[in-house]
Amino acid sequence: LRRGVPEVIFCQGKTPEQVARITRQMLEKGVNIMGTRADTRVFEEVKKIAPDAEYHRDARIFAIKRATVARNKGIIAVVSAGTSDIPVAEEAAVTAELLGNKVERLYDVGVAGIHRLFMNMEVLKRAQVIIVVAGMEGALASVVAGLVDKPVIAVPTSVGYGASFSGLSALLTMLNSCAGGLTVVNIDNGFGAGFAAHQINKLGGQEDGCALS
Amino acid sequence: LRRGVPEVIFCQGKTPEQVARITRQMLEKGVNIMGTRADTRVFEEVKKIAPDAEYHRDARIFAIKRATVARNKGIIAVVSAGTSDIPVAEEAAVTAELLGNKVERLYDVGVAGIHRLFMNMEVLKRAQVIIVVAGMEGALASVVAGLVDKPVIAVPTSVGYGASFSGLSALLTMLNSCAGGLTVVNIDNGFGAGFAAHQINKLGGQEDGCALS
Amino acid sequence: LRRGVPEVIFCQGKTPEQVARITRQMLEKGVNIMGTRADTRVFEEVKKIAPDAEYHRDARIFAIKRATVARNKGIIAVVSAGTSDIPVAEEAAVTAELLGNKVERLYDVGVAGIHRLFMNMEVLKRAQVIIVVAGMEGALASVVAGLVDKPVIAVPTSVGYGASFSGLSALLTMLNSCAGGLTVVNIDNGFGAGFAAHQINKLGGQEDGCALS
Amino acid sequence: LRRGVPEVIFCQGKTPEQVARITRQMLEKGVNIMGTRADTRVFEEVKKIAPDAEYHRDARIFAIKRATVARNKGIIAVVSAGTSDIPVAEEAAVTAELLGNKVERLYDVGVAGIHRLFMNMEVLKRAQVIIVVAGMEGALASVVAGLVDKPVIAVPTSVGYGASFSGLSALLTMLNSCAGGLTVVNIDNGFGAGFAAHQINKLGGQEDGCALS
Amino acid sequence: LRRGVPEVIFCQGKTPEQVARITRQMLEKGVNIMGTRADTRVFEEVKKIAPDAEYHRDARIFAIKRATVARNKGIIAVVSAGTSDIPVAEEAAVTAELLGNKVERLYDVGVAGIHRLFMNMEVLKRAQVIIVVAGMEGALASVVAGLVDKPVIAVPTSVGYGASFSGLSALLTMLNSCAGGLTVVNIDNGFGAGFAAHQINKLGGQEDGCALS
Amino acid sequence: LRRGVPEVIFCQGKTPEQVARITRQMLEKGVNIMGTRADTRVFEEVKKIAPDAEYHRDARIFAIKRATVARNKGIIAVVSAGTSDIPVAEEAAVTAELLGNKVERLYDVGVAGIHRLFMNMEVLKRAQVIIVVAGMEGALASVVAGLVDKPVIAVPTSVGYGASFSGLSALLTMLNSCAGGLTVVNIDNGFGAGFAAHQINKLGGQEDGCALS
Amino acid sequence: LRRGVPEVIFCQGKTPEQVARITRQMLEKGVNIMGTRADTRVFEEVKKIAPDAEYHRDARIFAIKRATVARNKGIIAVVSAGTSDIPVAEEAAVTAELLGNKVERLYDVGVAGIHRLFMNMEVLKRAQVIIVVAGMEGALASVVAGLVDKPVIAVPTSVGYGASFSGLSALLTMLNSCAGGLTVVNIDNGFGAGFAAHQINKLGGQEDGCALS
Amino acid sequence: LRRGVPEVIFCQGKTPEQVARITRQMLEKGVNIMGTRADTRVFEEVKKIAPDAEYHRDARIFAIKRATVARNKGIIAVVSAGTSDIPVAEEAAVTAELLGNKVERLYDVGVAGIHRLFMNMEVLKRAQVIIVVAGMEGALASVVAGLVDKPVIAVPTSVGYGASFSGLSALLTMLNSCAGGLTVVNIDNGFGAGFAAHQINKLGGQEDGCALS
Ligand SMILES: Nc1ncnc2c1ncn2[C@@H]1O[C@H](COP(=O)(O)O)[C@@H](O)[C@H]1O
Ligand SMILES: Nc1ncnc2c1ncn2[C@@H]1O[C@H](COP(=O)(O)O)[C@@H](O)[C@H]1O
Ligand SMILES: Nc1ncnc2c1ncn2[C@@H]1O[C@H](COP(=O)(O)O)[C@@H](O)[C@H]1O
Ligand SMILES: Nc1ncnc2c1ncn2[C@@H]1O[C@H](COP(=O)(O)O)[C@@H](O)[C@H]1O
Ligand SMILES: [Mg+2]
Ligand SMILES: [Mg+2]
Ligand SMILES: [Mg+2]
Ligand SMILES: [Mg+2]
Ligand SMILES: [Mg+2]
Ligand SMILES: [Mg+2]
Ligand SMILES: [Mg+2]
Ligand SMILES: [Mg+2]
Repeated sequence: LRRGVPEVIFCQGKTPEQVARITRQMLEKGVNIMGTRADTRVFEEVKKIAPDAEYHRDARIFAIKRATVARNKGIIAVVSAGTSDIPVAEEAAVTAELLGNKVERLYDVGVAGIHRLFMNMEVLKRAQVIIVVAGMEGALASVVAGLVDKPVIAVPTSVGYGASFSGLSALLTMLNSCAGGLTVVNIDNGFGAGFAAHQINKLGGQEDGCALS
Repeated sequence: LRRGVPEVIFCQGKTPEQVARITRQMLEKGVNIMGTRADTRVFEEVKKIAPDAEYHRDARIFAIKRATVARNKGIIAVVSAGTSDIPVAEEAAVTAELLGNKVERLYDVGVAGIHRLFMNMEVLKRAQVIIVVAGMEGALASVVAGLVDKPVIAVPTSVGYGASFSGLSALLTMLNSCAGGLTVVNIDNGFGAGFAAHQINKLGGQEDGCALS
Repeated sequence: LRRGVPEVIFCQGKTPEQVARITRQMLEKGVNIMGTRADTRVFEEVKKIAPDAEYHRDARIFAIKRATVARNKGIIAVVSAGTSDIPVAEEAAVTAELLGNKVERLYDVGVAGIHRLFMNMEVLKRAQVIIVVAGMEGALASVVAGLVDKPVIAVPTSVGYGASFSGLSALLTMLNSCAGGLTVVNIDNGFGAGFAAHQINKLGGQEDGCALS
Repeated sequence: LRRGVPEVIFCQGKTPEQVARITRQMLEKGVNIMGTRADTRVFEEVKKIAPDAEYHRDARIFAIKRATVARNKGIIAVVSAGTSDIPVAEEAAVTAELLGNKVERLYDVGVAGIHRLFMNMEVLKRAQVIIVVAGMEGALASVVAGLVDKPVIAVPTSVGYGASFSGLSALLTMLNSCAGGLTVVNIDNGFGAGFAAHQINKLGGQEDGCALS
Repeated sequence: LRRGVPEVIFCQGKTPEQVARITRQMLEKGVNIMGTRADTRVFEEVKKIAPDAEYHRDARIFAIKRATVARNKGIIAVVSAGTSDIPVAEEAAVTAELLGNKVERLYDVGVAGIHRLFMNMEVLKRAQVIIVVAGMEGALASVVAGLVDKPVIAVPTSVGYGASFSGLSALLTMLNSCAGGLTVVNIDNGFGAGFAAHQINKLGGQEDGCALS
Repeated sequence: LRRGVPEVIFCQGKTPEQVARITRQMLEKGVNIMGTRADTRVFEEVKKIAPDAEYHRDARIFAIKRATVARNKGIIAVVSAGTSDIPVAEEAAVTAELLGNKVERLYDVGVAGIHRLFMNMEVLKRAQVIIVVAGMEGALASVVAGLVDKPVIAVPTSVGYGASFSGLSALLTMLNSCAGGLTVVNIDNGFGAGFAAHQINKLGGQEDGCALS
Repeated sequence: LRRGVPEVIFCQGKTPEQVARITRQMLEKGVNIMGTRADTRVFEEVKKIAPDAEYHRDARIFAIKRATVARNKGIIAVVSAGTSDIPVAEEAAVTAELLGNKVERLYDVGVAGIHRLFMNMEVLKRAQVIIVVAGMEGALASVVAGLVDKPVIAVPTSVGYGASFSGLSALLTMLNSCAGGLTVVNIDNGFGAGFAAHQINKLGGQEDGCALS
Repeated sequence: LRRGVPEVIFCQGKTPEQVARITRQMLEKGVNIMGTRADTRVFEEVKKIAPDAEYHRDARIFAIKRATVARNKGIIAVVSAGTSDIPVAEEAAVTAELLGNKVERLYDVGVAGIHRLFMNMEVLKRAQVIIVVAGMEGALASVVAGLVDKPVIAVPTSVGYGASFSGLSALLTMLNSCAGGLTVVNIDNGFGAGFAAHQINKLGGQEDGCALS
């Protein structure tokens, strides 16, 4: 299962030491490794074991590249609504990149200022798969899915307050979208969206050469 | 209180006979009367007492006009997302009309086909107050409020299935809108939206002459 | 938008006459048409206008084929848990077929008798995209997504009683799946799953010839 | 959009440095700026960039006034139930003031001691628009809207414990009000209420001269 | 336990025959009997067994009086908000009467027209215990409890639509009341309120003579 | 209103300085004062102003006694289920005492060890009103109300974990009790229960002499 | 799997014809069959195929006995709170009997009249496993589990109204029980409780002879 | 009650001093003692009183063994899905061991990698009772219960994020399982599962000798 792609460690709820121990075991297999929900303390501990580990701060992801990765031809666009949604958007974007995808980011295009989205339509057009990340009312996913005829994956975020109920509002909005072709992942699950987008993008074919992810 | 505007009967949960009895009592005061959530059986009974009663079928409203009503200068736009939202949109529109307002309707412009909204921007521009009626994901209210700089009243509807939870999804979406100036009424409460829009529209001034509502 | 694919009418909440009127207008454009959530009374009315209309009883879908449709190379598998989930599974399967996809059905393989799933692994292997339909606890989607390395779309159904809360339990299960690559649509939204699966399947290439959908 | 009024920064979830950077960019345009949900650490950082910045502690708002603002003729009343609701009430009041409105405050008039409200009816009478801020049971909004015939905007607060469910109780109360003309914003959304009240108040006309907001 | 007061049959979910059978068994003990949630079909069946049975239509209660009942000195006031709340208010009032209490009714005094309540303050003053029945926003209970210094029992009703969530909104409002001394019973539980009010009223002393309840 | 009883300050969400300032203002009226939800820091600050202030640590209540209080004849029993419920039980008990009632405590008699309750039946028998405090499943209130024929006030507590949902489970249990005469207050609202119990107990008559509360 | 025990058909949501067809297929295997949630129309259809089918009306179960069944030595007690809980209690009891268990029923012993439970303690003592069925507040399960030191399975029922929320209240009560050893099944799932109780009872040994279930 | 088994202290919400005091009182009776939800600070305090106390760090349980305990013949298997579920799994396992059971652990066999479960089927076969611990989607319990014909107790955990809603998702999944014989305990209630499993396991007989638990 999941060969060619990195092994993944979900660091939330694990101590830096636990993450480091799991990392060491995986390294013996010579595979690529990525850790999600990793804070800087986790990264410090991992670096002791793998000095070549990289840290994607906004995405809260660390990555250790030891093996080449097949690269998909298509582009994945990651679109997000507000500045506070960026950590989740980055989790999706960096995940997709580490799995071998070209990613284009289009941030801060929430429906309250929808002209910004329309001024960047070519990003949506170039993409083969689109990930939309939005909190609070989450309406951006519907708008994007209504504009394009390609797979759109919506990620509700826990950004908001009051009746956003920690992402529930955005989640329900996205599930109820009238725009065909939209599918949804868990609140704040940037990783899941990046992973699913990769699986879809792969269907459009892979480039001949290979590269370190 | 509430002089100059019709007396209102909320017919839901009342028998046709009860509605007719309340109507008769009100008629003695010589005022205008409107009944919301009135089905045809209610209307038949009311007509026996007031043969001049009119019935707005889509809005489920009956109206009896006996007194002149001051007319507001500004226009109220009623915008709705899907065909199933029309009964609630009409409840709002007819309520506003009976209270003395000019109303423009813009229906079937949901975000899944958002180009229809953009092709009708002049309706939004002409209006002094806008009512947006939408079920399922309810994203239309956010989009409209983001496009204009005037009061927008959002009405979530119970239209939908599954995770729409009888209007809860649309309600939460609207409450969480990032677009400034949006206020919200209860699920399916077209009457409340029309009434509030009237109170706001009145602030923009009234025409000199008067008319039967 | 959505050219080459049928125009879609969501019949729930519309009278047979309303559906027939919308159908007549669409037919003038010479396109294919499908109606979801259509009961037999809707179909009778549609047939008067389009005598060549077909009815997929289990899927509650009627279809009118007037134009050729490009056919996708890959297979979409539709997997379902219990007998009561079949109407939603069929809505997904027939939608996918009408959009130009080959579909393989694998029904009644719920986790309570998981050996049936394992005895049919080759269906999962042949497919390019998998739709999993399940009510009550909805665990089947996780199990399938854990077994394969391809896009899986989960459809929770409202089948169940008590703490299934009309599909909420299955919905939450699917959103929380630990199996990477799973995305989710609204409760009972077979159409949405079929539509999204088609958009994904299209990325794997289309056959040269064409056919009536 | 939104010209003549301050640019707004929602500081919650942003670091003081991020807020300062956004502020600097906005200042170049010569506009007025306000930041909501700003704690003292945010204000300290903003002050380094704009020494003329003011801080409204109770409202948690900082303001930088660089341009004149048109002033509305009508008065906005801000009415609140308990002492703990004051931060939200002040967010509404200060927002309205910065947008160019005269504001009258009437605090601590919750329904448990409703005589205090009746002793201050002239405030309600003088106002053109009324904002009602209340937590726990939120009944004050209904009472006020039942007493007046003008637009009332209700703001539920997260004040309370137990079955207040962080503002849900007050929110539902307000949405279900039988008093016509009441509209509602998100829990704790003083800013949204102040902004909407301003848009409504503007309809009543603006004063000839201008002033620094 | 519960001697001197009628035996109670909760008829909801029982067939008329089952109720009749239980009634016959109880009659042998020579006690008074009351049946709540009894429709006319239940009453017809009971009358065959006990021709002296009375039916309180609005309250949906039947009563059979065979024994004398001690009468409490104090008065119980039953206050209700809207016309649709009357069945629950009557369930409370008739229950209290059958248990031996003097009851005064004050109906249709909801907070949207709160002047009607103030015009009838002497009812509140005369009472020893007050029951407040209200649906939708349920604010009436808080207002009443804030005006008096005596036990107030609040009954939320399922009257309303949309975000009233079948009485949940009114229930939460009442539980969160800031007015000291308010206690609450289940949604629509007029019987429970009448029973509790009786137990409280009894503490104020009983009259010397006795009577058929 | 509320004369003869202490003025009450709800300290939660107020700074020690705010509480002290309110206390000073109240002291000028020569009344008794009690503060609920008061931690030791609040008490320290209050003591500077009123050196005779007492602190009831378990109840988190401070009290300042300056005036005599009429004493009720009847006894209030406070019954609680587990050790973690004691702070709420004490809030109820101390509130009742400060309002002039004799209180008997019966703690740690939860239904999991129901024999302890039966071994102390005489406490229930002596009481005129009973307060039952319980978290988690909250079943104790039903059991007690089923055993006695007198007013019982149930206080759900937020004690528990998992599906106790911060007191929601206990709240629902108590609202649904089949035992007649039970009324309910908000989760953790010991004060409200003590206050209501006092209002009821007063109906049973007051002693001739008076005392410092 | 499941050898020796009947094959089970869950009839809810299936037509009588569908049930009959499944029954016919199963009969060919010579096994015992039971159908749950079977109304009389289902039974009529089944009888045409298997004239020896029996119908347990209260339990809504039909049974066809063709093979001998091993009998467990221990007794299963089924305890229920109110008359309306009997259908679920019978579903549990008849299921257990058909699986080869001796069952003792103890009905109508809800906590509001808890003395009835104590008068029948010997039933609890004789049993090896106990099933407790209760709706509304569901407190009976806690009380029983607190009295005995043996496995207790709790079945919440959807009986109740208002804040019982269709069994949610009883479900939460049971999950939060402080009485050790209690486990819970889905709302109204008498079958599941009977099945689990059988699996537990089997551990206590089986009788030598056999019988038609 | 509960003789032969340890006395249990639920330490959550108690100070180390309170736990120590309760421990001292219990020690006088010469019984075994276990404390659940005990952090290291609690253990330090307990050790002062009972130097022979042991601490099971992962399980957060301390144990003091002073009396012999009867040992059950059957094995209890504790199966868990992810690493973050281990504390709850250990609470169940250590509880069962202290009550006199042999326990086999099978951890990290979640449905996303279900082959690991199948590679360890002999553990499930050896066991007389199985406890399944899982968070997030909780599907493992269904899969296990579908594979075996013996009592399975499911423990949902609060592990997860977003729509896991602190264990609600896993709880609902488990309650809705189609696999017969599954019963459920509260979220994170490892103790309750271990206790119930012990009561069930005891039915399979006890070994002749005895041992310190
Ligand atoms: N559709 C509606 N939704 C909510 N409130 C309404 C509606 N129609 C009328 N009302 C309110 O109900 C009041 C009349 O209620 P009633 O006395 O029960 O007929 C009116 O004064 C309105 O404020
Ligand atoms: N409307 C009601 N709501 C709640 N409980 C009731 C109601 N009417 C009667 N009861 C209670 O139900 C018990 C009788 O229930 P049952 O034995 O099912 O007839 C009475 O003793 C009352 O305590
Ligand atoms: N623990 C409590 N829970 C709920 N309400 C309380 C509590 N303590 C005091 N109160 C109420 O809060 C009022 C004082 O609130 P405040 O003016 O905010 O200090 C008192 O008159 C009481 O009615
Ligand atoms: N009342 C019931 N509630 C829940 N599950 C049931 C019930 N009756 C039967 N079942 C389960 O449903 C399965 C049969 O479902 P089906 O194949 O849809 O007929 C049986 O094997 C049982 O595990
Ligand atoms: Mg699209
Ligand atoms: Mg706007
Ligand atoms: Mg997979
Ligand atoms: Mg008004
Ligand atoms: Mg009062
Ligand atoms: Mg009682
Ligand atoms: Mg027990
Ligand atoms: Mg099994």
